[in-house]
Amino acid sequence: MIKVGIVGYGTIGKRVADAVKLQDDMELVGVTVNSFNYRVLAAAHKKIPLFAIADKQPFLDNGIKIAGTMHDLLEQCKVVVDCTPKKVGVANKAVYQNYPIKAIYQGGEKEHVGDTSFVAQANYDKALGKKHVRVVSCNTTGLSRTLHALDKMFGVESCRATLIRRAADSNDTDTGPINAIVPDMKMPSHHGPDVNTVLPHINIVTNAVIVPTTLMHVHAVQIYLKSPASREDVLELFKHEPRIRLISGKAKLDSTAAIMEEAKDLNLWHHDMMDVCIWDECLYVKGNEVSLFQAVHQESIVVPENIDAIRAVMEVCGKEESISKTNKTLGLVD
Amino acid sequence: MIKVGIVGYGTIGKRVADAVKLQDDMELVGVTVNSFNYRVLAAAHKKIPLFAIADKQPFLDNGIKIAGTMHDLLEQCKVVVDCTPKKVGVANKAVYQNYPIKAIYQGGEKEHVGDTSFVAQANYDKALGKKHVRVVSCNTTGLSRTLHALDKMFGVESCRATLIRRAADSNDTDTGPINAIVPDMKMPSHHGPDVNTVLPHINIVTNAVIVPTTLMHVHAVQIYLKSPASREDVLELFKHEPRIRLISGKAKLDSTAAIMEEAKDLNLWHHDMMDVCIWDECLYVKGNEVSLFQAVHQESIVVPENIDAIRAVMEVCGKEESISKTNKTLGLVD
Repeated sequence: MIKVGIVGYGTIGKRVADAVKLQDDMELVGVTVNSFNYRVLAAAHKKIPLFAIADKQPFLDNGIKIAGTMHDLLEQCKVVVDCTPKKVGVANKAVYQNYPIKAIYQGGEKEHVGDTSFVAQANYDKALGKKHVRVVSCNTTGLSRTLHALDKMFGVESCRATLIRRAADSNDTDTGPINAIVPDMKMPSHHGPDVNTVLPHINIVTNAVIVPTTLMHVHAVQIYLKSPASREDVLELFKHEPRIRLISGKAKLDSTAAIMEEAKDLNLWHHDMMDVCIWDECLYVKGNEVSLFQAVHQESIVVPENIDAIRAVMEVCGKEESISKTNKTLGLVD
Repeated sequence: MIKVGIVGYGTIGKRVADAVKLQDDMELVGVTVNSFNYRVLAAAHKKIPLFAIADKQPFLDNGIKIAGTMHDLLEQCKVVVDCTPKKVGVANKAVYQNYPIKAIYQGGEKEHVGDTSFVAQANYDKALGKKHVRVVSCNTTGLSRTLHALDKMFGVESCRATLIRRAADSNDTDTGPINAIVPDMKMPSHHGPDVNTVLPHINIVTNAVIVPTTLMHVHAVQIYLKSPASREDVLELFKHEPRIRLISGKAKLDSTAAIMEEAKDLNLWHHDMMDVCIWDECLYVKGNEVSLFQAVHQESIVVPENIDAIRAVMEVCGKEESISKTNKTLGLVD
């Protein structure tokens, strides 16, 4: 059993904690909590041991039991998954290095926090036995899954993508815009270089805009293949690739809202869409050129990646076995 | 004096009417009105003669004077500008053909409503003396201006663009989405072929999404030039091209909301942004490849095009003179 601790209990941390609990080769030692809120109440309700980052009094005042400090948590685990906001993870690295543990970070941190960046399908083996591994961001994960699949089959010459980013997560009431399209003034955007931390050989340039929605990101992706393909070839490839889901406008899955509603209707784990969703009708293939729209659920797409990263750093099994186990427990289709 | 009638008094019609009134070589005979609303009240306040499409009683009941019928309007004018919703324009064409008048249609109609499609900078001469001319849609106008400028200077080999479309105009409370990104299930989208009605020789493929905002469209445009250029070359070109405006994120013009606020702060005509706006910081040029973001004010970008189309069909002057006159009267920079 791999003893796992989670530091940071927000959008990602709470999901990774629940996902760890479902693995038969992992044990959730507990999670850190920083301030009293409804997520902490839910964790206490689920009987997840809570370790206070700082003062435990606010939790006690609200009837929440505290199992110890972050130090106590780190002493008891073999792997820590850092799910803190960006820049906190890299600061925590200095702490983690005082313990005989492996650490997994999120994509908000810069590349060099990890010995490697990680997307299970694309480069699981790179993380085998590593001490520090960075699971890349939701956008980079989505792009890497799709590009890796195409690259494996046809070779990817180059990629140009526009990321149409959701402005805020569903529970976030402090972030805008509420009526504007906001281009990323960094051109090219950081997403292309970030894909290169996983797939270093692909020529990729990205740009991004933020739009007033909370549900999912959408990527408009233009890919030039090394060898020509047909639309049928590419559909067939995506149909059989794990963690890529072909969705159909004909079935009225014609918006990010419809996708997230379908995740509820199918009673998917946590009502999340952890697959990158590619629209069948929007796939255009002509010779070496592929154009597609894909949707990425920013809150959950990296959850299976974190689980696989835990197995990779602990070297308990290979890529196929880990992906298959994770998929099975989280209800993803192989 | 060119006697002009406007059929359809909505978002475009009301602006074209005001713009016609500013031209020293045109006279606004009047506009048609279909139902009583605040736009009609404003038109009456401006003393624009109103011609009722159908029953005039609802207007009289509200104290609005009616000058006659649509037949009366068409009898008095030399050019009719049809600003009705899509499919109504093509139906009206059968009516216009009974009068010795020229007719200008909007981009909601299909290509064949006109003897030519029209964007002043790109193909003014094609419309000279024509009986039926179609001013293309806002998106096509914006793409055509930018592509024509680049094509003139460097040659455009091909273009791939993603259109991030505003969901509704500012006054429209009946249209969604309010929290979703909605891809256009028609892939490629109709915008590429529509650009080809103006610039037939350019290899262009487009796709589109709709996002929950009302202010402007944003285009992510990828262009491959026939000859290489530098970023400075392209900036210099855009700086001197009429109806293209370079905007700067450094000046905090970093969203569609900021652009429309600036249109108010500069007291631009009707507080509209009739230029296609290209972000300086987002312009990426490397060899033959150009990538840019541009914003299009869907409510107004075609207004100067309609004015130029009137002069073209009446053959009263050449392209440069018409563009210059229109720009001067509408406060656009040459």
